[in-house]
Amino acid sequence: IGEQVLDLVAVASAGVMSFPTATMLRGSLNELFRFGVSPVRQRVSELLTSGNEELAGLPARGLVQQSEAEFVLPFEIGDYVDFYSSEQHARNLGRMFRPDDDPLMPNWKHLPVGYHGRASTVSVSGTPVRRPLGQLAGVDGPTFGPSERLDIELEVGFFTSSDSTLGSSIGIDDAESHIGGVVLVNDWSARDIQAWEYRPLGPFLGKSFHTSVSPWVVTLDALEPFREPGPIQDPVPLEYLQGDAHRALSIDLSVELNGHLIGGTNFRDMYWTMAQQLAHAASNGTAIRAGDLYASGTVSGEGAAQYGSLIEMSQNGADPFELPDGTERTFLADGDSVVLRGACSAPGAITIGFGECAGVILPARALEMHT
Amino acid sequence: IGEQVLDLVAVASAGVMSFPTATMLRGSLNELFRFGVSPVRQRVSELLTSGNEELAGLPARGLVQQSEAEFVLPFEIGDYVDFYSSEQHARNLGRMFRPDDDPLMPNWKHLPVGYHGRASTVSVSGTPVRRPLGQLAGVDGPTFGPSERLDIELEVGFFTSSDSTLGSSIGIDDAESHIGGVVLVNDWSARDIQAWEYRPLGPFLGKSFHTSVSPWVVTLDALEPFREPGPIQDPVPLEYLQGDAHRALSIDLSVELNGHLIGGTNFRDMYWTMAQQLAHAASNGTAIRAGDLYASGTVSGEGAAQYGSLIEMSQNGADPFELPDGTERTFLADGDSVVLRGACSAPGAITIGFGECAGVILPARALEMHT
Repeated sequence: IGEQVLDLVAVASAGVMSFPTATMLRGSLNELFRFGVSPVRQRVSELLTSGNEELAGLPARGLVQQSEAEFVLPFEIGDYVDFYSSEQHARNLGRMFRPDDDPLMPNWKHLPVGYHGRASTVSVSGTPVRRPLGQLAGVDGPTFGPSERLDIELEVGFFTSSDSTLGSSIGIDDAESHIGGVVLVNDWSARDIQAWEYRPLGPFLGKSFHTSVSPWVVTLDALEPFREPGPIQDPVPLEYLQGDAHRALSIDLSVELNGHLIGGTNFRDMYWTMAQQLAHAASNGTAIRAGDLYASGTVSGEGAAQYGSLIEMSQNGADPFELPDGTERTFLADGDSVVLRGACSAPGAITIGFGECAGVILPARALEMHT
Repeated sequence: IGEQVLDLVAVASAGVMSFPTATMLRGSLNELFRFGVSPVRQRVSELLTSGNEELAGLPARGLVQQSEAEFVLPFEIGDYVDFYSSEQHARNLGRMFRPDDDPLMPNWKHLPVGYHGRASTVSVSGTPVRRPLGQLAGVDGPTFGPSERLDIELEVGFFTSSDSTLGSSIGIDDAESHIGGVVLVNDWSARDIQAWEYRPLGPFLGKSFHTSVSPWVVTLDALEPFREPGPIQDPVPLEYLQGDAHRALSIDLSVELNGHLIGGTNFRDMYWTMAQQLAHAASNGTAIRAGDLYASGTVSGEGAAQYGSLIEMSQNGADPFELPDGTERTFLADGDSVVLRGACSAPGAITIGFGECAGVILPARALEMHT
C-alpha cells in the first residue's frame, strides 16, 4: 500500500478478518493460498476503503514502512521446476551451442521443455550469492575451482496454491485456478559447471547453488488488467495444451548490473503460457502441492538490448560489454550487484510493481575448506 | 525384530527412552535423524537385551506384527536427486542410444552424473503406480496418450540426516555422517515420454509421475559389517572426491515381476560411493536438508541376468523375454506387480533385510479427463 506494508497477522488479531488468518500465517503463505487468497484480498480491500473504520483499533505496528520490513521467502517450496519457454532465448542458445543445426530442438514447439531444479536453495531477494565451486572442463582434464562464468537468468515464476492427487491431472482451462501468484526469479547459473556436467541428464550443480525470488507475490487477480494475446503457436499444440490465447501477461522486465540498466524486455512474448506450463507439468499425474515454484526460463526479446542473460549479452563470453565505470564484463565479477525489476502498467489501471529481485556476488569460499 | 515391529512412540510413552522421542516422531523420521539415530538405536538395543525388564510395562500395542503394520513414507522429502552411478548401466544405455560413440560421456568417470527428480511423488512401497499419459514422438508429429514403454529402475538410495548451510560444502570424509540411512528405490520411468522430452534439459515427466521407496530405513551403522572395496577408479577423481576406497556396500538386490525373478545384482560394484555422491552434490554450496533423498541410479551388473531395468533386459524393446505364465514382456503391462528386494549377509553377521519396494501398475486414466 504505497510505501507501507499491511501486517495481516496484526489485522487478524484485531478480530476483523472473519477468516482463520492467524492459523493460516505460520511463517509462510502456503496455508493462506490453500484457503484461497481472493476472499482475503477482497476483505482487505474493504477494510482499506476510505470511510471504513473497522481498522481504527489496529495497533501501530499494523502498518509498517516497506523500508523497515524484513523480507522472507514467501512459501515453503515443495518442488521447483524451471522451464525454457522464451523462443528468442532458446534460439539464441541453440545458435551458440549447435551452430550447424536448427537452433530449436524438434520438441520445443510441441511442449514446454522444463526440468526440476533444487528447492532448498530458493532464497528471497537480497540474500547474497556465493560464487560456486565446481568441476570445470580443461585441456588436461577437469579441475575443481570457482566458476568463471557466473550468469543471471531473468525469469518470472508462479507459485501453486492448491494440491492435486497423485495420478490425477490438471486441465488447461482449470490450470490458472491452481496458480496463487507471480514473482520475479533470478535463476543464477554457472555456465562452465553446467557445460561440463549436463550430458546426458541436464543441469545439476550449475544451477542448484542459488535461485532468488522477489518477496512480493502478485496474484493473478491483480494482473487481470494486463492480459494480452500471446504469440501465435504454430504448429497448434496438442489438445491438452490448447488454452485461451488471450492469457499472456504484459510485464515490463529489466536487469540492472551495479545500478546500470543492461537489459530488459516484456514478458508478453513468451511462447508458452503459465497455464500451459502447469497443465503440461501435471499431465503425467504427478502431485502438485501448494507452494511449488514454476519459473519461466530466461525471458529474452529480439534485440541485443533485450537479452535476459549475460551469456547472450556477451555472445558466450566472446564480446565483452562495458559498464559506465569503464570496467568490462562478460560474466559476473565478485561484488557485482544484480537487480531484476518488473512492473505492469496500462491505461486506467493501477501500476503494479513486483518489488526487486536482488543479489550481490560474494567471492567463492576458500578451496582448502574442501579437503 | 523378527516378524515384529517395535513402536517407538509406545516405548517413549512408557518413559524409558530418555530422549525427546515423542516430539521427534511427528509423522516422519526427519527430527529423529536430525537428533542422531545412533544413540536412539543403542538405547533400543539395550532395552531389547535379554534380561532387561524396563519394557515390562510396555503396552501390548508396543510390538506390532509386521504384517499388520501400515507403512508410510519414512521422511518428509526436501529435494530428491537421482544419480547414474552404475558403469555397467551407463555403458548399456550409451551403446543403445549412441552406438557409434564411446558409450560413456567424457564427464562420467570424473563426477557422479545426476539430476533433480520430483520430491512430491516419492511414495512408500505398495502405493499403486498409475501408468502415465504423456507426449510420445510419432512419424506425423507427437501424440498424447498412455506410455507404452513403462519401465523400472532398480536403485538404492540414502536419506540425509542433517542440514548444511547455504554456501558451505560437505567434505568427502565427513559425508557419511550426514547420511541417515539407506532404502531401496524404484525410479519408475516412461522411456517414450523421456526420449521425446529430454533434450536439452534432461528427464522431466518421463520420471516425475512416481518413485517408490522401501519403508524401512537401514542405518549405515547396521551396514558396517557389509563394507567392501569398491571398483578401482581410473582416472583418480579430483581431490574433493577422494574418499576411503573401502566404503562400497555389499547388498544383494533382486527384481521380481509377477512373482518371477527377472534380474538381480550386487550393489558393491557401483562406481561412485554414497559419500562421493553427497560430497559432489554439496560441492557447489547448495543447502542439504535432513530428509533429502539421493538415489544411485539403476544398478546393473555385467551379465544379462543382472540388469536393473527392462530397457536393458529387452534390448530397448527389440528382444522380448518370456515369463513362466507364457506371456512376453518388453516393458510393463497393466496389472504387472514389481517387487525389488535387498539383503545383506556375511559370515558372523546378522542378515539385514531391506523390506520390499513394491508396486502394481494401474491402467492409465481415461484421456477424456484431460479436456
